[in-house]
Amino acid sequence: MAENGARRIRLGMVGGGTGAFIGYVHRIAARIDGDYDLVAGALSSRPEVAKESGENLGLAEDRIYTSYEEMARAEAARPDGIEAVAIVTPNHMHYGPAKAFLEAGIHVICDKPITSTIEDARALAQVQPKNGAKFLLTHNYTGYPLVRQARELVASGALGTIRVVQVEYPQDWLTEATGEENKQAAWRTDPARSGAGGCIGDIGTHAYNLARFVTGLRTEAVSADLDSFVPGRQLDDNVHIMLRFEGGAKGMLWASQVAVGNENGLQLRVYGDKGGLEWRQDNPNYMWFTEFGKPKQLLTRGGSISVPPAASMNVRIPSGHPEGYLEAFATLYSQFAAVIRGEGQDYEALLPSLADGVEGMQFIMASVKSSQNDAKWTRFSEV
Amino acid sequence: MAENGARRIRLGMVGGGTGAFIGYVHRIAARIDGDYDLVAGALSSRPEVAKESGENLGLAEDRIYTSYEEMARAEAARPDGIEAVAIVTPNHMHYGPAKAFLEAGIHVICDKPITSTIEDARALAQVQPKNGAKFLLTHNYTGYPLVRQARELVASGALGTIRVVQVEYPQDWLTEATGEENKQAAWRTDPARSGAGGCIGDIGTHAYNLARFVTGLRTEAVSADLDSFVPGRQLDDNVHIMLRFEGGAKGMLWASQVAVGNENGLQLRVYGDKGGLEWRQDNPNYMWFTEFGKPKQLLTRGGSISVPPAASMNVRIPSGHPEGYLEAFATLYSQFAAVIRGEGQDYEALLPSLADGVEGMQFIMASVKSSQNDAKWTRFSEV
Amino acid sequence: MAENGARRIRLGMVGGGTGAFIGYVHRIAARIDGDYDLVAGALSSRPEVAKESGENLGLAEDRIYTSYEEMARAEAARPDGIEAVAIVTPNHMHYGPAKAFLEAGIHVICDKPITSTIEDARALAQVQPKNGAKFLLTHNYTGYPLVRQARELVASGALGTIRVVQVEYPQDWLTEATGEENKQAAWRTDPARSGAGGCIGDIGTHAYNLARFVTGLRTEAVSADLDSFVPGRQLDDNVHIMLRFEGGAKGMLWASQVAVGNENGLQLRVYGDKGGLEWRQDNPNYMWFTEFGKPKQLLTRGGSISVPPAASMNVRIPSGHPEGYLEAFATLYSQFAAVIRGEGQDYEALLPSLADGVEGMQFIMASVKSSQNDAKWTRFSEV
Amino acid sequence: MAENGARRIRLGMVGGGTGAFIGYVHRIAARIDGDYDLVAGALSSRPEVAKESGENLGLAEDRIYTSYEEMARAEAARPDGIEAVAIVTPNHMHYGPAKAFLEAGIHVICDKPITSTIEDARALAQVQPKNGAKFLLTHNYTGYPLVRQARELVASGALGTIRVVQVEYPQDWLTEATGEENKQAAWRTDPARSGAGGCIGDIGTHAYNLARFVTGLRTEAVSADLDSFVPGRQLDDNVHIMLRFEGGAKGMLWASQVAVGNENGLQLRVYGDKGGLEWRQDNPNYMWFTEFGKPKQLLTRGGSISVPPAASMNVRIPSGHPEGYLEAFATLYSQFAAVIRGEGQDYEALLPSLADGVEGMQFIMASVKSSQNDAKWTRFSEV
Repeated sequence: MAENGARRIRLGMVGGGTGAFIGYVHRIAARIDGDYDLVAGALSSRPEVAKESGENLGLAEDRIYTSYEEMARAEAARPDGIEAVAIVTPNHMHYGPAKAFLEAGIHVICDKPITSTIEDARALAQVQPKNGAKFLLTHNYTGYPLVRQARELVASGALGTIRVVQVEYPQDWLTEATGEENKQAAWRTDPARSGAGGCIGDIGTHAYNLARFVTGLRTEAVSADLDSFVPGRQLDDNVHIMLRFEGGAKGMLWASQVAVGNENGLQLRVYGDKGGLEWRQDNPNYMWFTEFGKPKQLLTRGGSISVPPAASMNVRIPSGHPEGYLEAFATLYSQFAAVIRGEGQDYEALLPSLADGVEGMQFIMASVKSSQNDAKWTRFSEV
Repeated sequence: MAENGARRIRLGMVGGGTGAFIGYVHRIAARIDGDYDLVAGALSSRPEVAKESGENLGLAEDRIYTSYEEMARAEAARPDGIEAVAIVTPNHMHYGPAKAFLEAGIHVICDKPITSTIEDARALAQVQPKNGAKFLLTHNYTGYPLVRQARELVASGALGTIRVVQVEYPQDWLTEATGEENKQAAWRTDPARSGAGGCIGDIGTHAYNLARFVTGLRTEAVSADLDSFVPGRQLDDNVHIMLRFEGGAKGMLWASQVAVGNENGLQLRVYGDKGGLEWRQDNPNYMWFTEFGKPKQLLTRGGSISVPPAASMNVRIPSGHPEGYLEAFATLYSQFAAVIRGEGQDYEALLPSLADGVEGMQFIMASVKSSQNDAKWTRFSEV
Repeated sequence: MAENGARRIRLGMVGGGTGAFIGYVHRIAARIDGDYDLVAGALSSRPEVAKESGENLGLAEDRIYTSYEEMARAEAARPDGIEAVAIVTPNHMHYGPAKAFLEAGIHVICDKPITSTIEDARALAQVQPKNGAKFLLTHNYTGYPLVRQARELVASGALGTIRVVQVEYPQDWLTEATGEENKQAAWRTDPARSGAGGCIGDIGTHAYNLARFVTGLRTEAVSADLDSFVPGRQLDDNVHIMLRFEGGAKGMLWASQVAVGNENGLQLRVYGDKGGLEWRQDNPNYMWFTEFGKPKQLLTRGGSISVPPAASMNVRIPSGHPEGYLEAFATLYSQFAAVIRGEGQDYEALLPSLADGVEGMQFIMASVKSSQNDAKWTRFSEV
Repeated sequence: MAENGARRIRLGMVGGGTGAFIGYVHRIAARIDGDYDLVAGALSSRPEVAKESGENLGLAEDRIYTSYEEMARAEAARPDGIEAVAIVTPNHMHYGPAKAFLEAGIHVICDKPITSTIEDARALAQVQPKNGAKFLLTHNYTGYPLVRQARELVASGALGTIRVVQVEYPQDWLTEATGEENKQAAWRTDPARSGAGGCIGDIGTHAYNLARFVTGLRTEAVSADLDSFVPGRQLDDNVHIMLRFEGGAKGMLWASQVAVGNENGLQLRVYGDKGGLEWRQDNPNYMWFTEFGKPKQLLTRGGSISVPPAASMNVRIPSGHPEGYLEAFATLYSQFAAVIRGEGQDYEALLPSLADGVEGMQFIMASVKSSQNDAKWTRFSEV
């Protein structure tokens, strides 16, 4: 049972077999707060991997599936069937399972980006979920306590009218060419599995979503210059974008997988006419908050603050004891569990949704189109 | 089941009822890697709190106890009884349960410091565990991947002969007087529940243990100046200690609960005749490593390194994605689970043990005695 | 006399009267290494200010001028006349004095940007200096020791082929509207005195020049989005630019005077296919250097380094003792003194020149033009 | 002339010939603000070095001396004789010149520590300066603007009653044995030239003085453990000290020349019952100031502040543009010039004095004595 006495949600998983990275992350996230029990899985399309992975995770034999369609059908029919499913396959394998489970009345937790094509994303948005099944897109950075605090600070007017948004996500792991043996790299650099965006889909969307989540600003148009620096690479590995927001704010977004010396340097900086905010993912328990004309303040996760703490943040341990990526991820899981149980009204508007997923695909496609047109300003409505 | 297919350990808990901090932390730590199922508890000595807490955690009614003695007896008698117990009570309530469970053949996971008196610690060391029951002391900072790396770097000779060790643990939460309503503060500042040491027992031992774990140095004597700065406080809230190690290395240890602006600033710096190391808990995914005459290198958890990565570190997610306090804690839990299953030979020497607990009490008592004698150099053998 | 026994250069100054900021900085820069004696000045066009300022600085009465033309004429005629002049007036007052002194055979040290219009810059480039008089443009950040080191690292191939350049210069001092009483702000936000660029001319050129100096990359085109966020402001106060360099490298440049919480946050990051560099002006004695696949190294000014130290850096005091802005500025002054004395061959190619000034104006004008054309890619040759 | 129109002070120098480090620093410090003209020197006791060094610095032939006695006599007799002298010799050569110049009525600027023996220090304190000649001890760190701010914050009560002072000065340049060819190391590790303290005299006194300057606390007793880790070294290279201050505050001081990875890591942390301060020399334009229960504030040199800026700080350039070691040093020089001119009443109490020099020697000798007595608490009155 969860810490607060709430019952655990029965969870299934599609993808995430032995050796996969993000499935493992989802499982930890599901365990941290004790809100889920993993009881079924179509962990791989290869039967032997599905079987071995399922056994390792302690799944009952009859709930180890090799096809998500079968899993959706069978689980929906069981009285003790799964209530939610985590979809952790490569991008091009999101749409099918998401549709199947939503139509089976099973809540969907889906890794980002939502699909590999915008057509799929739009089609998914048209699906009629049975029994009000909900959808969570795991833009996990939105679960960080201080990201929630940032959002509430902006919403409260503490920064005034937002003028400038600088967001970036540099990595360096794709600095050199990689082969098929690097499983993580292989599908991410393959248009057939990843979609039209490489770096922009993998991490650019995270950066975009983070800026969007914190500021609430809606994008008017993007001007993008996408590059593939590594010879032979088919998808972009460096992304330069200028953003124009409705209302006049401006932004820059940089994402890169070839920025040597950066591991996962996601950083957001927001400036308004009254104040500024600066936050980095690699030391996420700290955030700079400056009121114009006053000294910079270092806000800490759960620590002293001169404004009300964010109502929506989940702080597990005292300030100064670092929480990290997995706890932020877990917050999405536990708040979605509350939504599933009908107790999460306050969270529902905060959790990344199917609409955010469609917007993410618009961002990707508009950027790709802009880049193909010499960085011409491109509206989301044009893709 | 655990990620690797290993079966889950059946776990009980003593203390940790609703509202307690460290019990909650232990439960998350036990969940993260999926190596335990919490199935029994004596969560409070107050029956109604024990019942409510147990129900909230989903324990079966007949496994919610109000006495640890009864729990040890009953669980040892069940075929599906707990295999391990987490003791998360205040210090003076460690000895009794630890003895009872060890003698019942149940593995013990015990919060630090091991007891509230050195007599209790020594008595516990004399207990004959039934069926080889093991003991884990949760000096959780030793679970941080880079702390493991630090230990291996020292052991490898990369720093040469160690000369100087600077360790500190400043906090500020006890800067002002607190009342009984602050539950965390109340027992920690009460000699009857905490023992002879306040700050030194609560966080000084963590700092000492960290230095000991990383350097392997044995202490020759301490010279301590302990203070209670807050009027009316009965135990120390600031600790200044000079250390002499066997072989000639020297150290300083500072722990404080009145250092305004510090949350949990645990920091270790180690210098040898060939190199130096610097690590901070509040940003634990980074560590400075300097070879004399070369530029400082920033080692990252799981990232690039010019020496072999620590064999004993548990890295769950890619470098640049921060792990934190809970993951370090979970590493102790999961590696202890491996020990329980008979697969953890490599870990056993690393996990904080009963002997470390006795040494921690020696450290506390020698420091208290030194301070009472005008900071006279005091050997552990004198207490 | 200078430290090395070289004779001091006789220096004059145009602008920089009482209350001016940058003239004061130039004077300190000229004093630090003892290479100059300030002996004449047209410190203000207002006679009483010129007189008072000159007296305060100890100038002989007959060498306090109120007109730069007169000063150029008179000093050129004196046997002990000035050998060099520092021009520290607002931008629109650079061209006249620079031309006059060069044609009088007096070396010119000129603050940036070189002029307020590109026509003036080009005209200045056509001036025939008498007796080989030289020109120094004080892009002072190029004098930082680690900026020199960065340049040499790039030139040495330590970073491989450069792919991505991220440069930024955020400030916040113009977050709110300012009046004429803020002297520094007044002329910088006035097109008549500043030229067509506000923020881009004041600090954007510094950022551009820094990237250019370190990487050696030539710009192919810019796509710029310039804004004036403060109501009523005539010139830009926020600058977003994407850069395309010859050879395929890409860049982003952000300059802002409305980024609350930033004082002078000039930062350069350069990434190649072998390595990366990161440097910030606000803590300029440190620079990150990463070779792909190895830990980040923290290079320090004058400290340990795994590659040869920069031949062109001027390190006055031991590493760990910080040098700053004034020392970097002084390095330009002292190396220009060496050039004047005929001893500075090695420095001449490093010191920002009249050609750099013209390029800076091209950068400003191309960016302004691009911004006026909806961020259309604009070549320097188009302005 | 100085910037403010004040006349320049005629300065001489004892020591500081070609190749010396600290003399060069003093000369830059004297030049930065334009308050001095160096016109005479006994730069070396070796005639040829004295001559070459003097010529390089442009001294008139008849003002290049090889004996400080002769220099004191001759300069005192000249109508244009020096008004102040900078003594920059090794420690054992401070007393003689200081006495000679004070008795000749010439102001003395003396490097620290004041002498090599406490007897010399006390004798110097007994000297009767002619014509009210003043004495400045160059504890240069007290010139940093934020150190001045720290002092004023403490004095204003912003931190409340001070409880804990942590000061440290780690370096690593003496990690390995050095020979006579390392001129800086040679005299500092030689008791005949340095006195009874090695590391403690060279940098421990700086740390002590800094703590003393900022907090105003008077020392009751020290307990010291001094070590020479490098084989064959005669003086201490690592210093561990516990401090007891009058009124009950406690402190720790660590100084080391064998802490690999530290260049000049001077750091001061002060905690009171209302607030805390933290400052580091290697990034000196920033200081943490925390009021208990509020977020940490990052104060910047000359930047926004929630309390009045320090009246005694000298800020030359805008916040965000770093000033450094040389500017701090220069502030002592320029404020001493004001004292000499009779305009520096406000500064006189701030500038490190002969009394501070005697106290510094007491600190050294009490620490050495304590260390020789097994770290016995030792009062300054006992040495």
